[in-house]
Formats: sequence, structure tokens, C-alpha cells
Amino acid sequence: MAVVVPFESPEKPSIDPLVDLVSADMERVNSVILARTGSEVTMIPEVANHLISSGGKRLRPILTLALARLTGYGGDGHVKLAAAVEFMHTATLLHDDVVDESELRRGRLAARMLWGNEASVLVGDFLLGQAFKMMVEVGSLKALEILSSAAAVIAEGEVMQLAVAKNTSTTEDEYIAVIRAKTAELFAAACEVGPVLSVRQKAEQAACRSFGMNLGITFQLVDDVLDYGGAAAKLGKNVGDDFREGKITLPVVLAFRRGGDAEREFWRRTLERGEATDADLEHAIGLMLKHRALEDTIGRAHHYGAIARDALALFPDSQMKSALAEAVDFCIARTH
Amino acid sequence: MAVVVPFESPEKPSIDPLVDLVSADMERVNSVILARTGSEVTMIPEVANHLISSGGKRLRPILTLALARLTGYGGDGHVKLAAAVEFMHTATLLHDDVVDESELRRGRLAARMLWGNEASVLVGDFLLGQAFKMMVEVGSLKALEILSSAAAVIAEGEVMQLAVAKNTSTTEDEYIAVIRAKTAELFAAACEVGPVLSVRQKAEQAACRSFGMNLGITFQLVDDVLDYGGAAAKLGKNVGDDFREGKITLPVVLAFRRGGDAEREFWRRTLERGEATDADLEHAIGLMLKHRALEDTIGRAHHYGAIARDALALFPDSQMKSALAEAVDFCIARTH
Repeated sequence: MAVVVPFESPEKPSIDPLVDLVSADMERVNSVILARTGSEVTMIPEVANHLISSGGKRLRPILTLALARLTGYGGDGHVKLAAAVEFMHTATLLHDDVVDESELRRGRLAARMLWGNEASVLVGDFLLGQAFKMMVEVGSLKALEILSSAAAVIAEGEVMQLAVAKNTSTTEDEYIAVIRAKTAELFAAACEVGPVLSVRQKAEQAACRSFGMNLGITFQLVDDVLDYGGAAAKLGKNVGDDFREGKITLPVVLAFRRGGDAEREFWRRTLERGEATDADLEHAIGLMLKHRALEDTIGRAHHYGAIARDALALFPDSQMKSALAEAVDFCIARTH
Repeated sequence: MAVVVPFESPEKPSIDPLVDLVSADMERVNSVILARTGSEVTMIPEVANHLISSGGKRLRPILTLALARLTGYGGDGHVKLAAAVEFMHTATLLHDDVVDESELRRGRLAARMLWGNEASVLVGDFLLGQAFKMMVEVGSLKALEILSSAAAVIAEGEVMQLAVAKNTSTTEDEYIAVIRAKTAELFAAACEVGPVLSVRQKAEQAACRSFGMNLGITFQLVDDVLDYGGAAAKLGKNVGDDFREGKITLPVVLAFRRGGDAEREFWRRTLERGEATDADLEHAIGLMLKHRALEDTIGRAHHYGAIARDALALFPDSQMKSALAEAVDFCIARTH
């Protein structure tokens, strides 16, 4: 079932240089995360650690640390902000699982399957509360403004997604608007709070935000492709989850538009009316290959990735800048 | 089925003096609430306004306004903080409905029955995000600290409640710890942010917090009693909701402890194992009357109400102070 989407790269880009550059800071973030999920109410650390310890790559807090360093920040505040960003992300995952009625998350049973929907909703709320407490402790009203706005935009994006859900005639623009809000906004905020702490010029802050926003879009588009094949299994993802849940993603948007009447009826039956079988998944992947929908989604990801790299062009060359550029390529290369 | 719990009062206390004193400010809060539930994603104002317009009395924002005035605040910030407090409360209600699988809220269909669990979770998250945005706009780090801590404590209290849920041997102390976190903390925070804005002495800030905390406990205990009778119908509550959901509240804690073996087995069957019928509800109320469980819960409410009134004793006499004291009596008098 694995679909390998061709993509030229001389050697495989890696996230390791970025991870190495922030590793000392990241250890401190991990300690903060552990300390702040503590509660006498034992279910809270249980649920939180189930998800937090399940091998997410913590890309978002890594970005907060990296962009703070790129812009010359020498203080301590970025550690708590990075932990807050990861808590916001974890809270979103917990709430998403309830919304999507997911059974798996990162290859393990979703928390709601083990502790119930109620625990997922409430532990998510707890982590959101802790995230805001940490931001307040850092004391930067600008960082608070960026992250609280992001929280509202993300929720708005998720509701927007409910509205486009199962609507096969969603346009590419509508879909990009959804993932800007629901996924890329947190990447953007994670990247923007770094330069805010280091009190840099507006232009550098905007550059960091743009880097995060476009990297976030890239990341989500690649995720959409992985759901229909590629190296999904390695990443703890089930091929076909989006399809079975009737999610409209860019590969579907492209295949639906490019298909004939019979094909469109197929997408309506499987996604809008939710009558999909395993054989339908094979057929869906066949249609995507026929219309180059996966390949062209990767093409779109390259486009946003290029914008992300260019956003950083105004910074002087440095190891950190190269590592961030390579991280963009790494996100795209996840498909093979 | 209505149980009138005897309670001596010369004339019926009213919330009206308090409402009148803050009415000009409250109009501004209502405008902010309306403006901040706006979104191009039409489901958001729909869901938010379904709940916000359903006739809640907005006691929490009223308290923020009143305590800000009591402590001599002359600025504007209390309006946005009051709206933020109401949004935090509304978000909690939306999430609670999902957790409790409630069908009704304030006598209307719960939002989740009309728009689904997913909308309740996500619109709750949106309102929480908007609440933090407004707090950040006010710019008081102290107020942000109080309200973000409250958000974490409330969620912790809700999870704590899951742990005691259906456990009939919960002690009174354990139950009070739950409602301190889950209900009273937001009252306390709502009252504390007023004096923080007006930069008063620590002692006055602590007094306002204590007033709110104890009023919150009073309020919840009376709510518990109303669920087994009293003037519940007038308030849009269904008698017996807590019983049918197997919720352990103080009347149950008292009746369980004071009952014999057969009675304890009745509580275990109906609440822990969830085998309650309508006839069981009649029997439960009978046991509560026999053991004076409702009366004594009101007695406990009087105790906390007295602490709330005394907390304000260090402020000079004023119309506002009298109105706040009368509001405490009003909360208790809701039972008849």
C-alpha cells in the first residue's frame, strides 16, 4: 500500500543539526514539562505523560529555542515559552482526539480510549492553564499577546475545519486557510516569541513569524500525503486514517477536482457519506496517483518550504540558520 | 417532589441592589462579550450565543465589576477582565457538558446536543483563547497570573471530581476540596482581579479573594441542594440531574454517612452502579429528609456565607459593601 512519491534530493536532509544546536536548552524544557505536568490529582500526570512521552519530536518548542538563539537572545525566558508552546500543542491533540473520535495517536491508543473523553478534555484544559501560567511567569506581554491570539486562532481553525469537513468541493484556498489557522499558526507563534524576547526589530520578528507559518503549512501538507502512503508506518501513522474519517485534505481536493463524474461520486460516497471500505482506500490511492494529487501536494509543500527558507534570508549566515533551512527540507523529505 | 428547606429570614434578600450598582459597567461588558464572540466562522457566534444568551445571571463578571468599584478603581480594565471571566465560565460549561454528557443546560438543550461534542470542545477553546487575549490587552501581569492560575486549578478540580465521581464514601473534606477548585476558584479570581487593578494593599486583595472563594462554596452547596428540590424549577434546573448522573454532592455525602447498611447499599446501587429509577429519586429525597442532609448542607452554606461577609468587614461601609453582603444572603435564599 506504501506509495513512494518521487522527489529529487542529493543526500537525505536531517533534523539532527537543529536538534543538536538546541539540545542543552531542550533538556531544560523537558524538565519544565515534567515538573509542570505534576499534580496531586494523579490522573493528570498519567494522561499528560502518556501523550508527552510517546515520542513526539517536539518540533514546536525546538523552533522557539532555535529562533530565540538565532536572534541573539541570551536570557532564560525562552525555556518556559517553549514548554508552554508544547503544552498548547498537547492540549490541542487531546481535544482533537475527542473531536475526531480517534482511536490512535502516534501509534498508541489515544488517551480518550484509556481514560475517557472527559479526561482528554479536562487534562487538555489543565495543560492550557499551565501554559498560560508559564507565559505569565516569563512576563513578556508581547509574547503573551502572540500566544493567546494563537490559541484563539487555532480553535477558530478547528471549528472552520468542522465546517469544511466532508465537503468534497472545498477549494484549495479554503483548505489552506484552514491549515494556516489550525496547524501553521502555532508554528508561527512558536517562532515569533523567540525574537520578541530578544527585543529585535519588527522586521526580524515578522521574518521569524513568516518562517514558522510557511514551515507549518509545509509540515501539514506533507502529513496529508503521508496519510495516503509514503513512510507513514515509520512515523507511527496509520495509512488511510484521514480517508476513513472522511477528512478533506489537499490530495483529496486535487483528485476530486481533476476527476470525472464517476470519480466525484466515489469521493462523495466514501468521504461525505462515510461509506468507505478498505478496497475503497486502494481505489482512492489509485485515483490520487492517476491525477498526480500526492506529487502535486508535495509540490505545493516545496513552494511553502521555499518561502520559509527565504524568510530567514535577512539573517546573517550561521550554523543555526543552515540548520533551520535543513529542517524545512527534512519536513518535506519525510515522505520517503 | 419539591422540598422546601426551612430557613428563617425576615424579608427576602435580593441581588437587585448589586445588579443596579454595576449596571452601567455591565452594559459595557455585554457589548464586549457580543463583539468578542464574533467570528467569520459562523458556528462560533451561534454556539457561544446559544449559551451566553440563555439567561445566566452573569454573577461572576458582576463580582469583578463590584469588587473593582469597592476598592476604588476608576479605570477601564475591569470591563474586559469581567468579560474574560464570563468567557472562562462559559468555556467551562461547554466542556462540562461534554464531560458529563449533559442533555440540558440552563433549561435549554446543551450546545453539544445541537452542534455536537466537537463544537462544544472547540468553541470552549476559542472562548478561552479570547479570554486570554482580553486579559493581555488589559496589560496587568498580576491579573493574568490570577486568572491563568485559576484556569489550571479549575481544570485540576474537574479532574479531581472525575476521581471522586461515583465514590459514595467521599468525605466532606474531599468534597469541599473539589468544589473549592472547580467552582469557588473562579469566584475567588473574579473578585481578586478587581483590587489588583486598583493597586490596593495586599490585605484588601486577600479579603476580596476570600469573599469570592467562600461565596463560591456557598453558591455550589446551595446548587447541590436545589438539585434535590427547593425552587429548582424556577431556575431552569431539573430536579434529580445530579442523582441520575451519579454525582456525589454534599447532601449525598451526609445521607450516606448517617444511614445504615441497607441505605448505603441503596446509594451504592443508584450512584456507583448507576441503576437509578424515578422511584429511587423519591426514595433518595426521603433519606435526605430523614437524615436532615439538605438542611445541614444549607447550614454549611450559611457557614461559608458568614466567612464571605466577614471577609469584607475591613472595608468602610458603603452601598456596594451592603449590596455584596445581601448577594451572599440571596445565594443562600435561592432554596426557597
